[in-house]
Amino acid sequence: MTIDAAVTELSNLLGPRLSRSKGDLESHGRSETYFPLTPPDAVVWPGTAEEVQQIVQICARHGCPMVGWGTGTSLEGHALAVQGGVSVDFSRMDKVLAINAEDMDVVVQPGITREALNLELRATGLFFPVDPGANASLGGMAMTRASGTTAVRYGTMRDNVMGLRAVLADGRMIHAGSRARKSSAGYDLTALMVGSEGTLGLVTELTLKLRGQPEAIMAAICAFPHMEAAVNAVIETIQSGIPMARIEFVDANMAAAFNIYAGAELPQVPHLLVEFHGSDAGVAQDAERFREVADDFGATGFDRATRAEDRTALWTMRHNAHFASMSLRPGASVLVTDICVPISRLAKAVEETREDIAAMPFPGTILGHVGDGNFHAELMFDATSEAERIAVHAFSERMVDRALRLDGTSTGEHGIGMGKMKYMGPEHGPAWEVMAEIKRALDPGNIMNPGKVVQVN
Amino acid sequence: MTIDAAVTELSNLLGPRLSRSKGDLESHGRSETYFPLTPPDAVVWPGTAEEVQQIVQICARHGCPMVGWGTGTSLEGHALAVQGGVSVDFSRMDKVLAINAEDMDVVVQPGITREALNLELRATGLFFPVDPGANASLGGMAMTRASGTTAVRYGTMRDNVMGLRAVLADGRMIHAGSRARKSSAGYDLTALMVGSEGTLGLVTELTLKLRGQPEAIMAAICAFPHMEAAVNAVIETIQSGIPMARIEFVDANMAAAFNIYAGAELPQVPHLLVEFHGSDAGVAQDAERFREVADDFGATGFDRATRAEDRTALWTMRHNAHFASMSLRPGASVLVTDICVPISRLAKAVEETREDIAAMPFPGTILGHVGDGNFHAELMFDATSEAERIAVHAFSERMVDRALRLDGTSTGEHGIGMGKMKYMGPEHGPAWEVMAEIKRALDPGNIMNPGKVVQVN
Repeated sequence: MTIDAAVTELSNLLGPRLSRSKGDLESHGRSETYFPLTPPDAVVWPGTAEEVQQIVQICARHGCPMVGWGTGTSLEGHALAVQGGVSVDFSRMDKVLAINAEDMDVVVQPGITREALNLELRATGLFFPVDPGANASLGGMAMTRASGTTAVRYGTMRDNVMGLRAVLADGRMIHAGSRARKSSAGYDLTALMVGSEGTLGLVTELTLKLRGQPEAIMAAICAFPHMEAAVNAVIETIQSGIPMARIEFVDANMAAAFNIYAGAELPQVPHLLVEFHGSDAGVAQDAERFREVADDFGATGFDRATRAEDRTALWTMRHNAHFASMSLRPGASVLVTDICVPISRLAKAVEETREDIAAMPFPGTILGHVGDGNFHAELMFDATSEAERIAVHAFSERMVDRALRLDGTSTGEHGIGMGKMKYMGPEHGPAWEVMAEIKRALDPGNIMNPGKVVQVN
Repeated sequence: MTIDAAVTELSNLLGPRLSRSKGDLESHGRSETYFPLTPPDAVVWPGTAEEVQQIVQICARHGCPMVGWGTGTSLEGHALAVQGGVSVDFSRMDKVLAINAEDMDVVVQPGITREALNLELRATGLFFPVDPGANASLGGMAMTRASGTTAVRYGTMRDNVMGLRAVLADGRMIHAGSRARKSSAGYDLTALMVGSEGTLGLVTELTLKLRGQPEAIMAAICAFPHMEAAVNAVIETIQSGIPMARIEFVDANMAAAFNIYAGAELPQVPHLLVEFHGSDAGVAQDAERFREVADDFGATGFDRATRAEDRTALWTMRHNAHFASMSLRPGASVLVTDICVPISRLAKAVEETREDIAAMPFPGTILGHVGDGNFHAELMFDATSEAERIAVHAFSERMVDRALRLDGTSTGEHGIGMGKMKYMGPEHGPAWEVMAEIKRALDPGNIMNPGKVVQVN
């Protein structure tokens, strides 16, 4: 078999840095959501860009699929080798290659995690701001065009990747972008690669924008009498230009889940979790302006977290929302939706979603980065029940219909993987076929993460 | 001839909205820099997206090249029909289609100019911030990935185009992006089209991000004893995080040119022109912080412009820098360079450029959006002198070598057109060929602005 031939050759190249052990195959065949276990044929751990290139050359010769692996925290089955082949695990390529503090940029290997990067940056006064919650690898974050809680202030991976190096399907190494802050030199291959989910190549290096660590940070949480009040407070906050560093919504069910999972003592009503970055005077003023808006919408229990440990507790609780949601129905499978709409449509989108969850036979939570118009519903369903499977997927389709009807998108930050392939046609129309044409041009053998994002046959 | 057949068919479709008059052909065959007159075979003025589609379908059938035309202000010969064919003039497609004030976005046709758009937005409290100086069309700005004086604060067209509609080479209409603030739904075709200079399709609609009009604006100008002091003041300003809305450098020669062309009375030394956007208190504080930095580098003659008319005068002078430079040698041709480097390399790049100009047999100026690390040298050379032509192009190559040696790019904002094609290989290496592969996939007949950006044969 072609895959076997590739694996044999890779094994000669990499020795112990190729594994076919059951444990390694299974750990690289698992996703955090509802996809069944899908072990690859082998796992490889390259140590250098040149080794990635050699791996691609071998796989290309044998038509063997390759799927990049960061930390395995993607939610749509992005990193599963559904057509077999090799999982290329970047965990050994986790170095910071250059910190250019004066230019506020950093060059990293793709396997470094967000937290490890910020730890290395600590002494510089700079930080990398994109925070999807999970301690994902920067390579994975770039490939899914990740964002998260801080995008309202600092943008997404689209805005924060300045350049990259990648190995394409035929083994060519390319360099896209530069350390210049802007460029008009030809097609934006950096932006094309960011969000391509490994279907166009394997990234071996990223140049990232950094920001100055804010002089002062203040976080807060407050409760709202009902969902509409909370969402309207968000809309008013954004429209009045208060510079939010984070503005996160959780619904009453999510508050209940935090109480169970994280031992919180939140009233079982919708909440907003917010953060302000700036000078001491600035964050105090921003927090006060936000509080005035929140008060107008009936907010109560406004609780400031100025100490670092209180903020950490707040955001750890928030970042564990996925696991907290799961505690509402232990043992269930989880489907996470991820729509993003213009902010003027947010109240309608969230309210329709709340009503939809209420009508479902399983529990669900709503939470999201509402400053961007992005929110998630998490549905805890019994995957062994055909009725629940049908219901949850119909729910997911209604979410996407809602997003598209309201001028939005089927996925704000999680990406397509396999889970959202069926929505690409409805969202993009003929532009989806254009994506496939680009894929065919750059990967005619369809060996780079086949079965994801685009339909090539 | 195939082009003639296309023009005949287009004439039947468009009637008086197709012209072959000498005047129209010449006005669409002219560039603002050193390229020779290159009239197209015909000029067409579509009125709707559907008409653009019909034009493309006819041209595709006959293999007739198409070149989009906005206001003709590009600097690298982007809009010249160097392989003949049709100039598609978007000046009739200049409507605002929807202002979504709550969402701070606007949907426009590509022919609307920057100033016309901002005039239409005036009552909303919002504005479109990208300002390349020229009153360019938004379509043209998107296609060259334009930026200009305000990019240091508001980003470039890359950051401000949320979505678009375009007609591809085979006549398909596609829609890329959405009105959602972010998306992870597949390849970023919006970013691929922005900066593609019309080589992948003709844009018929753009969705743009808007910003709130600042409560207060303050501009200022100050003089520096020498170039190094001015550039180091910029670096210090950016690194200390003072939120600049504009920070523009002009060298001593440019100051002299302003005195001649605009009747200014500037000392013949380097200057910085700056602007602050924010609250009344905020801009006063920002201006004071900037002034402290400038003072440390020996700035003199710090002159605030708080009244709108004074600011307009200041920025009109700056925006006319191209014409002012030309006044240093009336009748000469102009070559404008456009490199962008990481800010830590800016002093070196500008100083080397100054020395290089001093050694040339023709006058030159330096000016730029130095907050981004982007600056231009304008060289006024005699195009009838072979020696000067050779010297000016060698100068231009040294500029690019300098940019690439210092981790920068050959063009920060002007784009490639024809003028910078020869630098694409040195800048991008194998990635340039990847751009050509994308071009071939989407425009196999090479009829969309052929001869620009990529080399397909």
